[in-house]
Amino acid sequence: MTRSPTPYRTLDPAGIRAFLAAQPALATRLGGQPDAWRVREVSDGNLNNVFLIDGPAGGVCFKQSLPHVRVDPDWKMPLDRTAFEAAYLRAVRPHVGNLTTELLHFDPDLFVLVVESLNGHVVLRHGLMQGGDWPKAAAAIGRFVARATFHTSPLALKFEASSALLAPFARNHTLTRITVDLVLTDPYHAHPRNHWLSPELDPIVANLRADPAVRRRVGQMQARFLTCQQALLHGDLHTGSVMVADQDSRVIDGEFALPGPIGFDCGLFVGNLLMHLFATPTPEGRTRALRDITQFWTHFRQDFTTLWTNAVAHSHSGDAYAAPLFRDDPTSLQQVQTQFLDAIEADTIAFAALEIIRRLTGYAHVADFDVIADRTARAARQEAALRLAQDLLAHPEHTSTVAALSARAADRAA
Amino acid sequence: MTRSPTPYRTLDPAGIRAFLAAQPALATRLGGQPDAWRVREVSDGNLNNVFLIDGPAGGVCFKQSLPHVRVDPDWKMPLDRTAFEAAYLRAVRPHVGNLTTELLHFDPDLFVLVVESLNGHVVLRHGLMQGGDWPKAAAAIGRFVARATFHTSPLALKFEASSALLAPFARNHTLTRITVDLVLTDPYHAHPRNHWLSPELDPIVANLRADPAVRRRVGQMQARFLTCQQALLHGDLHTGSVMVADQDSRVIDGEFALPGPIGFDCGLFVGNLLMHLFATPTPEGRTRALRDITQFWTHFRQDFTTLWTNAVAHSHSGDAYAAPLFRDDPTSLQQVQTQFLDAIEADTIAFAALEIIRRLTGYAHVADFDVIADRTARAARQEAALRLAQDLLAHPEHTSTVAALSARAADRAA
Ligand SMILES: Nc1ncnc2c1ncn2[C@@H]1O[C@H](COP(=O)(O)OP(=O)(O)O)[C@@H](O)[C@H]1O
Ligand SMILES: Nc1ncnc2c1ncn2[C@@H]1O[C@H](COP(=O)(O)OP(=O)(O)O)[C@@H](O)[C@H]1O
Repeated sequence: MTRSPTPYRTLDPAGIRAFLAAQPALATRLGGQPDAWRVREVSDGNLNNVFLIDGPAGGVCFKQSLPHVRVDPDWKMPLDRTAFEAAYLRAVRPHVGNLTTELLHFDPDLFVLVVESLNGHVVLRHGLMQGGDWPKAAAAIGRFVARATFHTSPLALKFEASSALLAPFARNHTLTRITVDLVLTDPYHAHPRNHWLSPELDPIVANLRADPAVRRRVGQMQARFLTCQQALLHGDLHTGSVMVADQDSRVIDGEFALPGPIGFDCGLFVGNLLMHLFATPTPEGRTRALRDITQFWTHFRQDFTTLWTNAVAHSHSGDAYAAPLFRDDPTSLQQVQTQFLDAIEADTIAFAALEIIRRLTGYAHVADFDVIADRTARAARQEAALRLAQDLLAHPEHTSTVAALSARAADRAA
Repeated sequence: MTRSPTPYRTLDPAGIRAFLAAQPALATRLGGQPDAWRVREVSDGNLNNVFLIDGPAGGVCFKQSLPHVRVDPDWKMPLDRTAFEAAYLRAVRPHVGNLTTELLHFDPDLFVLVVESLNGHVVLRHGLMQGGDWPKAAAAIGRFVARATFHTSPLALKFEASSALLAPFARNHTLTRITVDLVLTDPYHAHPRNHWLSPELDPIVANLRADPAVRRRVGQMQARFLTCQQALLHGDLHTGSVMVADQDSRVIDGEFALPGPIGFDCGLFVGNLLMHLFATPTPEGRTRALRDITQFWTHFRQDFTTLWTNAVAHSHSGDAYAAPLFRDDPTSLQQVQTQFLDAIEADTIAFAALEIIRRLTGYAHVADFDVIADRTARAARQEAALRLAQDLLAHPEHTSTVAALSARAADRAA
């Protein structure tokens, strides 16, 4: 295969049209003449240009990296993030099917990623903020994480295969640096990028930073994030990385993909559901948020365990907890599974707390609390969320299960 | 730099002489005329050809990978292992200085590694078997592990640097496969490569394999070995990988280098000292073995902690337990250090047990017990070592420190 080395340039709608027209498979998928295609910009993330293109026969979603952060052109950034997103889709799509989008095309010169367009879907965060309800979505995301992580771990793979699969993602330095700084470090010391509802939250922020038990747990989670390479992670699994329709839930935006602890993906999702819980003004909304946390965790844990049990039973398992040791001893298998998943549960709770803290006191905030018009009320809800997060970090022994976490969150958010 | 692509061939003494003569720096180091150089084969490991070459001015050690296991020509093996050994020396030598050898030359076509020749040194295992005593050696190895691991971890490095440093070693598949199979898996199920003093040890081997608590712990350590990438490891740090002289101790043979849990390096060394303890026939020998275990662990733990404390104090620390969180809170720093090193201690004990079991019941045995001429006595000592190892794995809660381990081992070896 020869490739003409097109120099990078940011494509405008006309350029996008020409780009798609030049790819027979994409042109066929859209159908009709390029002039008839509708090109709509939908960029709402921080980093990339995203367009939806509709033709008479179908639609595609076009995503292109920019040489800078989309919302801050002074913050320069390498272009390779869509390459990581393409690689993530290649790695997990065979295992998760329609729980993510199909990769239709990747152009390594223009850093253009084309995936199927989701029709009639909304971003879960926005949907929840508008009071929408998708009773099956959280369970679907639990299944997604279970499959995407199990199948990329040495529980499922010979170590040569898991190591080769994970290696390229360990080079996702640009976006991992964002996580290390913005999620795991900056919120815990004075940094110019931090901001919060001030002066209302000044006391709780000061309190959090002054709490040595919080800092100890944060340090520990930094080490866990950087050294515990259990599986391939999505790396940015908040409610803005999930799109939902009536009977369909999809994970998008895998550009932060990296090898890491499975509880990081779980924790980001749970943390964002918790923030929705604290932000949502109605008791029904809160009941649904709690249901979603339970559904997500239950399905993740159950699916992960089932995949593992089946792999061992069929001797398809990998080099960690190798099948010859457990094939004939289901009781021991169950015990090590419980232990392994309990450790993921503890990580999940800690990373959920870190996510809440960084989204309320760090650089990149979430919109969920915008539904509370009154500033004092908004600050009060945020403070309640931060207090819970502080306690989760300072006293992990008080809240050792996601069920216990839900119960405590329900109390505090009531 | 241009490189003539020499096809690989195994060099004989004449070839070695010519090879060294063609490298001005090496020829100068040896001095005089190539004809005057003495070439002696010293291969005693399982894998490679090793020669010592002495000239009028000095000596070098020449090591070349073979396309098969040296002691088993039917077991084919890629040549890249000396490349990993060269890379390991490059990575750690700046931090450990004369606790390892200087890398003088590496030829990537012939897979030839040339390092300084150690003069008047003996392999620690052989020295100990002959009743020798090197009171400072174990402490030196503890310092070696502390430095080699701390400086290659994200405790010391920004994650971009630690990740780039570790990445090439994650491709050391051939030798890691040996560890995964021979150390972590095969001894725990029926495998044709396993062997032991039979029938004497048949009952304890059967007992070990039938113990579900052992298998659960082994499974957990498999996962830890494959997913916990704390630092760059030597990967094969037994007493045959250490050479000692009166006032000098060196670690050699880093071809198994890989990213992994620091307790793996510690555990292999402690496990081999424990085997020496069980094998040595005299009370003085046992006293010295126990002293060595204590010295190794104390120095490792102390040096690792000091390096870490200094890094944080000077804000040279990495992204795990980042300096901004701990710089002004020495009490918290001490607490996370204790927690981190306690976890390494637990790993050390478990990996020591795995090493004992694989060296007495797996494929590659150790010579230590050969000093016991009487077969029944030899079997009894091995059984005692295996019983301790079984207990360490089945009941980690009984032996949570290396000090406790030494005490129990002293009892059982007496
Ligand atoms: N496959 C898709 N189909 C329809 N809309 C999509 C699709 N992918 C993304 N979007 C829309 O584009 C927005 C930005 O995409 P995203 O991948 O999150 O970009 P960024 O990496 O910049 O955050 C999403 O919030 C969503 O509204
Ligand atoms: N730098 C050295 N100086 C002197 N002797 C050495 C040196 N390196 C290795 N040896 C000798 O060669 C033997 C084999 O070397 P080693 O690196 O352990 O090979 P292998 O990888 O085959 O196990 C050692 O046991 C030791 O006796």
